[in-house]
Amino acid sequence: MGSPPRIGVIGIGAMGMAVAMRALDVHLPVAVRDVRPEAEAEAAAAGATVCATAADVGRAADLVVVLVVDAQQVDTVLFGDDGLAQGMAPGGIVVVSSTISPDFAETIAPRLAPASLHHIDGPVSGGPARARDGSMSMMAAGPDAVFAQAEPVLQQLASRLFHVGRRTGDGARTKMLNNLLAGVNLAAACEAIALGEKLGLDAVRLLEVIRASSGDSWMLGDRLPRALAGDFGVRAMVDILKKDLGIVTQAADAADYATPLADAALGVFARTSAMGLGGEDDAALLKCYRAGKAG
Amino acid sequence: MGSPPRIGVIGIGAMGMAVAMRALDVHLPVAVRDVRPEAEAEAAAAGATVCATAADVGRAADLVVVLVVDAQQVDTVLFGDDGLAQGMAPGGIVVVSSTISPDFAETIAPRLAPASLHHIDGPVSGGPARARDGSMSMMAAGPDAVFAQAEPVLQQLASRLFHVGRRTGDGARTKMLNNLLAGVNLAAACEAIALGEKLGLDAVRLLEVIRASSGDSWMLGDRLPRALAGDFGVRAMVDILKKDLGIVTQAADAADYATPLADAALGVFARTSAMGLGGEDDAALLKCYRAGKAG
Repeated sequence: MGSPPRIGVIGIGAMGMAVAMRALDVHLPVAVRDVRPEAEAEAAAAGATVCATAADVGRAADLVVVLVVDAQQVDTVLFGDDGLAQGMAPGGIVVVSSTISPDFAETIAPRLAPASLHHIDGPVSGGPARARDGSMSMMAAGPDAVFAQAEPVLQQLASRLFHVGRRTGDGARTKMLNNLLAGVNLAAACEAIALGEKLGLDAVRLLEVIRASSGDSWMLGDRLPRALAGDFGVRAMVDILKKDLGIVTQAADAADYATPLADAALGVFARTSAMGLGGEDDAALLKCYRAGKAG
Repeated sequence: MGSPPRIGVIGIGAMGMAVAMRALDVHLPVAVRDVRPEAEAEAAAAGATVCATAADVGRAADLVVVLVVDAQQVDTVLFGDDGLAQGMAPGGIVVVSSTISPDFAETIAPRLAPASLHHIDGPVSGGPARARDGSMSMMAAGPDAVFAQAEPVLQQLASRLFHVGRRTGDGARTKMLNNLLAGVNLAAACEAIALGEKLGLDAVRLLEVIRASSGDSWMLGDRLPRALAGDFGVRAMVDILKKDLGIVTQAADAADYATPLADAALGVFARTSAMGLGGEDDAALLKCYRAGKAG
């Protein structure tokens, strides 16, 4: 890898844009590609090079982070016409950070191998603010040698960097289990706070007490203060975590493993979505509970 | 209230003993009563005065903290033969910190009133270690004047002291909702970690990653490191949190409010108990998931 390594980011939504900006902050050359011209213009204004195709990002980068929305988009930007695999020089590292199923994650490395490209299965967590300042977490799986090569630059993008396994797929599995907990803990937080409101408690005080007690969780502390202030501005949509919980319950079913908590949370996400709130911030589960439609 | 105020503690199990020791640490005179002579001997060795009856604790104290196991025991030590209400001088403050239902908590103040005793509905959270060093949280409900009188001494016993409402019952309601989250978050943590094991992940590494990510919770961080180290030494029994979740779901039913997450967690607690593990540490839910008996 060159010095400094050249970074590519494909998919510059909230997370991808934050990663690109962070890379620019630490003085790495950055090439980007997105389907939305306005996102590309924003990145260009910050100093990134805008490419016409994913293949062109590959030509301009030693390590590419893929942060498109889902598995189908990952497939297209890696292996479609003018895809990354057609442009990137042998030895390049492709870090797939989109949330995808473990089964799909496992298929990527063998398909990159003919072009002599390496795969890191590297989902991330923490949201755009922590991506922006380089403090997000990354759950990276891949062979030791590939991880060792990527580690110095990944560490600058995700200071909470974990090598979770040599098997690609283990990054996606780890993220999937984190999502199980994020989804359940959020649903439970909304269930408890809305019940408190119904029982006549001051919800803001209740939240403050729980944050100092054994019922605290990352999701409660992140989502509920905003929701109780009436701010449902979208950071992460109901339908995204609903999709993520569906990946968990399908993987659990396939392993003949019962997930009663994830199942219950998925039900609440589905009922919230059925209220027409699927595109709202996931704290909108609170509205579902308040409306008495959670179960 | 005298200066320094004299403290009573009735029920010196793990939590009550820690509260008594903390009060001694901050140089308050402490009177105790328990049904177990060995607990009384331990408190006496640390400098507490052992009383023969709850009424005698009342005679020796300006503020009494009640930390017996359940509502029936609370009823007995307050209102039974030789109960606290028979001994305590008018103006005394009775802080009931046992976990009891909101409905029962509401009945206490009217029954203490004939003896001119005041009630603080004050459940606690944080476990014995934080009770011991005075950093536990207390969710105190009661009239402003009573709370103001009790506040200086309660602050020394529970530095995270919250006046959650004027209505007695609101302390119990707040604790109940914290318990909902503690129970759900613990069940979810065990569900995710055991699924990770089943999918071939390193559970210790998985736990480390989640603790740095959006799936983190207080219960995960407190219970799972010990459980993964094979330490199921009892801090809080499965059957205690099972009972607490039952209080939540009953109160929710009575309010015609659906609690799908609490219901699911209660099911896992019940199935763990049905495996004969009700007397084990509540992290034993992990064993239920590992055995494939959670759902």
